Amino acid sequence: MTTSAISTYEPLTEETAIKLAARLFPEGAILKCQEIGDGNLNYVFRVSDSKSDKGVIIKQALPYAKVVGESWPLTLKRAAIEAAALRKHSEFAAVLVPEVYGTDETLAYTIMEDLSHLTIAREGLIQGKNYPNLSAHIGEYLAQTLFHTSDFALHPFEKKRLVAEFSNPELCKITEDLIFTDPFFDHDTNNFEPELRQVVEAIWSNNALKLEAAKLKRSFVTEAEALLHGDLHTGSIFADDNQTKVIDPEFAFYGPIGFDVGLFIANLIAQGITRNGEDREAIVGHVINTWEVFEARFSQLWHSDGIEDFKDVPGYLESVLDKIFRDTLGFAGCELIRRTIGLAHVKDLDGIEEAERRIQFKKQALQLGETFIIKRSELTSIHDVTALLEEF
Amino acid sequence: MTTSAISTYEPLTEETAIKLAARLFPEGAILKCQEIGDGNLNYVFRVSDSKSDKGVIIKQALPYAKVVGESWPLTLKRAAIEAAALRKHSEFAAVLVPEVYGTDETLAYTIMEDLSHLTIAREGLIQGKNYPNLSAHIGEYLAQTLFHTSDFALHPFEKKRLVAEFSNPELCKITEDLIFTDPFFDHDTNNFEPELRQVVEAIWSNNALKLEAAKLKRSFVTEAEALLHGDLHTGSIFADDNQTKVIDPEFAFYGPIGFDVGLFIANLIAQGITRNGEDREAIVGHVINTWEVFEARFSQLWHSDGIEDFKDVPGYLESVLDKIFRDTLGFAGCELIRRTIGLAHVKDLDGIEEAERRIQFKKQALQLGETFIIKRSELTSIHDVTALLEEF
Repeated sequence: MTTSAISTYEPLTEETAIKLAARLFPEGAILKCQEIGDGNLNYVFRVSDSKSDKGVIIKQALPYAKVVGESWPLTLKRAAIEAAALRKHSEFAAVLVPEVYGTDETLAYTIMEDLSHLTIAREGLIQGKNYPNLSAHIGEYLAQTLFHTSDFALHPFEKKRLVAEFSNPELCKITEDLIFTDPFFDHDTNNFEPELRQVVEAIWSNNALKLEAAKLKRSFVTEAEALLHGDLHTGSIFADDNQTKVIDPEFAFYGPIGFDVGLFIANLIAQGITRNGEDREAIVGHVINTWEVFEARFSQLWHSDGIEDFKDVPGYLESVLDKIFRDTLGFAGCELIRRTIGLAHVKDLDGIEEAERRIQFKKQALQLGETFIIKRSELTSIHDVTALLEEF
Repeated sequence: MTTSAISTYEPLTEETAIKLAARLFPEGAILKCQEIGDGNLNYVFRVSDSKSDKGVIIKQALPYAKVVGESWPLTLKRAAIEAAALRKHSEFAAVLVPEVYGTDETLAYTIMEDLSHLTIAREGLIQGKNYPNLSAHIGEYLAQTLFHTSDFALHPFEKKRLVAEFSNPELCKITEDLIFTDPFFDHDTNNFEPELRQVVEAIWSNNALKLEAAKLKRSFVTEAEALLHGDLHTGSIFADDNQTKVIDPEFAFYGPIGFDVGLFIANLIAQGITRNGEDREAIVGHVINTWEVFEARFSQLWHSDGIEDFKDVPGYLESVLDKIFRDTLGFAGCELIRRTIGLAHVKDLDGIEEAERRIQFKKQALQLGETFIIKRSELTSIHDVTALLEEF
């Protein structure tokens, strides 16, 4: 639904945001608005009723990446992709994504459910929260959204229509560069402490690792398996102890299923590295549970909703899950490396104030990343994976 | 270029074909026209100058498949895909494809170079011709067209633009059904002699084979590696002893590179099965040479024209070629099976009049097909592949 007739792009202001949102509130409501974005690619306005404090969110794409000023232009089409992905994924996991109330392609905004009663999962995890339902919900989200948008569930015409609709070259290129390429070369987007230089140079000269990274990049650019979220880290998730909502699918496109699973697990692991004892075990449990819930639900959907003629051939589901598992590990490995030495870091690691611990954790993240990439054919279960984390 | 202003589709006649072609001939030329199509999906008109006999071809897509009457509607968009694929591939292998003079999306036709001085390779091979340059030319065609349309050569934006342009769901579905699905199940599109029933039923109940077929189908529907011809059998090739021209890329889409290589090799092998002694060795030589020319040229282009950051990582090119080789064998296996028991057969086998020999050859085709699919991870060189043919 288009909610505006304005014909050219302009950045919204708090005043225009209120005007756009007004129809969603009772007549006579006194509305206020605040820009609450902390990202670097978008405005996020919260418009709320001064009396009830009920609100809605208006997210508007900026035509450039704020992080590097206006010098990095970025397609506005991503706002339409994000809204379409939220709607498509909500067909299969409605309770796990924000409701979309309206969009406007020209102004590149989406009006959606206000989730400000929840916290960004990364922030909560850093503060020591454990979100007992996080992995069950994300495992469910992954299985539902990825299975239902794959060739295993869709008529081939519909699947290919969606592949074209969600063609997202500009945002894919960010991933191709920042996750799959730059960290493996001495590239000027990389960013790491001098204490890591020796380890980083070992990565740059590790041809066995680079060969596997090349294969993973190739999977990313060629394998149109399902409609991915495309950027499923813990900063793309709102949560509390009961609820989980996945936001920000502006990187959505048709790619390999393991990419979404791997990114989420890598970000859990980056958090787990910083914890000890029971606190770490909570994260280990989330990693295991994410995979196990995903695997169980994907398997159930395969049997109940699958349309593939070969679906009952013995070993086929297992073979598909095995590929997803290997891909998950490989992509998780790339994410751990790039979140440590690439352009965009994670606060879980960067926020550790004591330098010695921070460097130690980052070395562990790099070591795990390398191991996941190199050994992804040998690790046979998610418990093998978490055992590596528990070794530290 | 659009050569007509007619606004709705209608089948061309010999008269309208002459009108459309007239601008390509000298003023005053006396033109004649003949419909020469033997396919089941298109009209093919040859318009020629009565004096010089120089001609052009007008190929028009029919809105249905003739083979089963008008009951099988088929998108006219395939004419535009075919013309666009001919033009895209001619950027890299101009001498190996017919020149396109014009197209019209509404009337779904393409005017192109007349190749009637050449013979369809399948027909010539059946008559015992060997076409000494066939495999060198097709190996070159495969390497040039597939490398240059892959992520290894194209900017990611251009590659993704082409993926969308060449989205071809309807014709892909024909392949998905007729090559990858129906022959592996007791489906009513299958067609085979009663003498083959026992072998065919063994295929239908061979779960190890079906598991591998399922994986190959999955590669076909998910892996957007390069702009394929999509139907590269020996009936899609015009040849004489010196020239080779690849026609009919109406199945073109972004798929796995090994599919084009595998289809061509499978069709050579179907011919080779019917031959003995030196005649067979000529075909064995073509199979080996196709792969070796493809591999050598692809490798050379990788180094000279490749843009992938990882291209100089030791082992990466070898890993890519290894995947293409395995895929080639698997897809060749599927093609051999479907050309023997599926809906669309090959004259190489069906044309053998003596029933006992025909059945024997068809059993060999099925056996080779199964072996290629099942053993594609074990066969290490193209010589291992041809050795299997030479065993018969």
